[in-house]
Amino acid sequence: MITEHKIYEALALRNDKKIVLLVMDGLGGLPMAPNGLTELEAAYTPNLDRLAREGSSGRSIPVRPGIAPGSGPAHLSLFSYDPVQFEIGRGVLEALGIGFDLGPNDVAARGNFATADEQGVILDRRAGRISTDECIRLANKLQKHTNLADDGVEVIVKPVKEHRFVVIFRGEGLGGELTETDPLVTGQPPLPVEDLSGTPEGARTAQLINKWVEQARQVLVDEPRANSLNLRGIAKDPGLPKFSDTYQLRSAAIAVYPMYKGVAKLVGMEVITFEGDRPHHEIAALKQAWDDYDFFFIHIKKTDSYGEDGNFDAKMHEIEAVDAIIPEIVALNPGVLIVTGDHSTPAKLRAHSHHPVPTLFWGPDVMQDRVTIFGERASERGAFGLFHATEIIPWALGFADRLKRFGA
Amino acid sequence: MITEHKIYEALALRNDKKIVLLVMDGLGGLPMAPNGLTELEAAYTPNLDRLAREGSSGRSIPVRPGIAPGSGPAHLSLFSYDPVQFEIGRGVLEALGIGFDLGPNDVAARGNFATADEQGVILDRRAGRISTDECIRLANKLQKHTNLADDGVEVIVKPVKEHRFVVIFRGEGLGGELTETDPLVTGQPPLPVEDLSGTPEGARTAQLINKWVEQARQVLVDEPRANSLNLRGIAKDPGLPKFSDTYQLRSAAIAVYPMYKGVAKLVGMEVITFEGDRPHHEIAALKQAWDDYDFFFIHIKKTDSYGEDGNFDAKMHEIEAVDAIIPEIVALNPGVLIVTGDHSTPAKLRAHSHHPVPTLFWGPDVMQDRVTIFGERASERGAFGLFHATEIIPWALGFADRLKRFGA
Repeated sequence: MITEHKIYEALALRNDKKIVLLVMDGLGGLPMAPNGLTELEAAYTPNLDRLAREGSSGRSIPVRPGIAPGSGPAHLSLFSYDPVQFEIGRGVLEALGIGFDLGPNDVAARGNFATADEQGVILDRRAGRISTDECIRLANKLQKHTNLADDGVEVIVKPVKEHRFVVIFRGEGLGGELTETDPLVTGQPPLPVEDLSGTPEGARTAQLINKWVEQARQVLVDEPRANSLNLRGIAKDPGLPKFSDTYQLRSAAIAVYPMYKGVAKLVGMEVITFEGDRPHHEIAALKQAWDDYDFFFIHIKKTDSYGEDGNFDAKMHEIEAVDAIIPEIVALNPGVLIVTGDHSTPAKLRAHSHHPVPTLFWGPDVMQDRVTIFGERASERGAFGLFHATEIIPWALGFADRLKRFGA
Repeated sequence: MITEHKIYEALALRNDKKIVLLVMDGLGGLPMAPNGLTELEAAYTPNLDRLAREGSSGRSIPVRPGIAPGSGPAHLSLFSYDPVQFEIGRGVLEALGIGFDLGPNDVAARGNFATADEQGVILDRRAGRISTDECIRLANKLQKHTNLADDGVEVIVKPVKEHRFVVIFRGEGLGGELTETDPLVTGQPPLPVEDLSGTPEGARTAQLINKWVEQARQVLVDEPRANSLNLRGIAKDPGLPKFSDTYQLRSAAIAVYPMYKGVAKLVGMEVITFEGDRPHHEIAALKQAWDDYDFFFIHIKKTDSYGEDGNFDAKMHEIEAVDAIIPEIVALNPGVLIVTGDHSTPAKLRAHSHHPVPTLFWGPDVMQDRVTIFGERASERGAFGLFHATEIIPWALGFADRLKRFGA
């Protein structure tokens, strides 16, 4: 069942019950060997187990059965926006993630510095993961020595991290449905940007971006490693309905990594700035902001990173670090606390996977189900069963008594 | 999953297996304190538990996750009509509930007598819940001293109960999408009726209804308590597909309160008249009508009323009174017996709530699941899991062998 925003928008009301959505990225896991435990099952989590025992559990499907999502779509789902319905370019997410405010005339692309041979064939799609300092130097070089001024288009190049940068093309009448240059495998030349929309503006935009890519590769030609680049996820801000308006929730995001700040901004959440990058720093930020918002999205990144590294133990210990901060959230008396992940990243698979994600709801009006621990198999028996992640916010609004009655 | 009536209509067939839908209004509950039992869990219900043990259970979502429904939409869902798709005005439900047959030229509104100060500001939206006798006197007074004859519109005013009445505006070319006059809070003046459809007929209808409201308030000006009124849910009969046609079920409703008779009529059920207002009276009516229909909707009101009163024990005892009549239904050998509620009304919350509703199916061809008692938590483990209330009738048709095979 897919969330229908208009229904909820019509029913949403304000009260003083706060909603906390705690997301451990890539939370779901798998046993490394048959009959083993998952990362979450193996972790010592007395506080999460208490929440599961007192509340209700289930397993959420991020996008559709069998589909492993990227971080952007997976978070849109958690925020109740079906990512099949609301498509967001990766370039848009990266731009928002570095604090760049996209305007209606902006087309944004994620850039990856790459290593190519003399024929332009890609040898390393990440240019040996160059340092962020190197990325800054190269982005500045591109900013200085490339332009589309003759075509009335401003080009803005911003470094992100390691081999990643953002490029924004700003001008009247840009748009279309644009393909990526990244061949996705090494040993192949980059692809030209093509427009799939069939519109005049799409054709012009593809042509201008190809022109810029050509300039940029010339500027980089003498670089030892980053002598080429690719553009991915080339798109405009899709203008999503705003979370705060739809649900009457003053909404704040507490996250360390740009992508998650970006997707939160995209749906209109305010991004809280704070010092530090560990779970306990995020909780300190939560306490600081507690009185000023109704809804808090807290993002924990490293569960996913360790999963992608295949590091079962490190992922397990990161879950334990999150468990340790749960009492501080509980002490704030939220109306509803949700603990979940955006998708699974089993250390066994070293990648995002489609496996449904253990999810729990806890709060005074959340029905207590029979589940007594927080884990993949325990949550199978939970009151929510197997459900779509876009339903998490609607259920939370119900438990927080933040919806008017539907009809008389 | 939302029911697709056309598919079922194409497959429906007649046989001699009867379907009984027993609805305890506001059945679902919550424990009054942590680790406690709900009203249904606390009730002594050996007969309902037997049905759960022999049949299959689940929890039904009335409208959408997190949304607490009103009685009208909740019953539409039980009858397989998605209330988001099929919107029904409260005025229409009230008119049908008092046995008034709405025609295609009728616009119906629910009226509430109210108390206002000299400036018209509403002091009591229910006029101190005047007696039904007083309501009858006032409705007759309005019928006698108001009219829109000059505009070619007949006005029919009917008392309902306490402060509630119905007014029907009958004439050619009435319609539109009309707003309510009730400010929903005291200390505010009533609102004018406005048309949101933007059509000429909508504009004219709003203007005529405002003219009538003005007349009516003048007629009431000297009344001690009911010196004003508000109109709500102003609409025409939406012309729903008829239950009996769609499913090939001769359908009967056994209910005490007007609203539930009204919504049953709206989908084309016949309303059975009988003496008395207790569950055992309703069962006597069921036995009387047994041979003449294929489908019986039996509505028990007081579970909801006691829930709204916050009276846990009285709600529990009403559930026990319903349990006591179960053997008489079983003795009639229905093909399928469904026991459910239209929504939850936990005594703890004193209001309709969004919490999913325990639901059971029982009959010779209903699969026996592992659930052995009828209750909120027990039904979590049931074969139906968490499912949409609009699916109840389709499942029942299947268990009653009343659907042809789909395709060859």
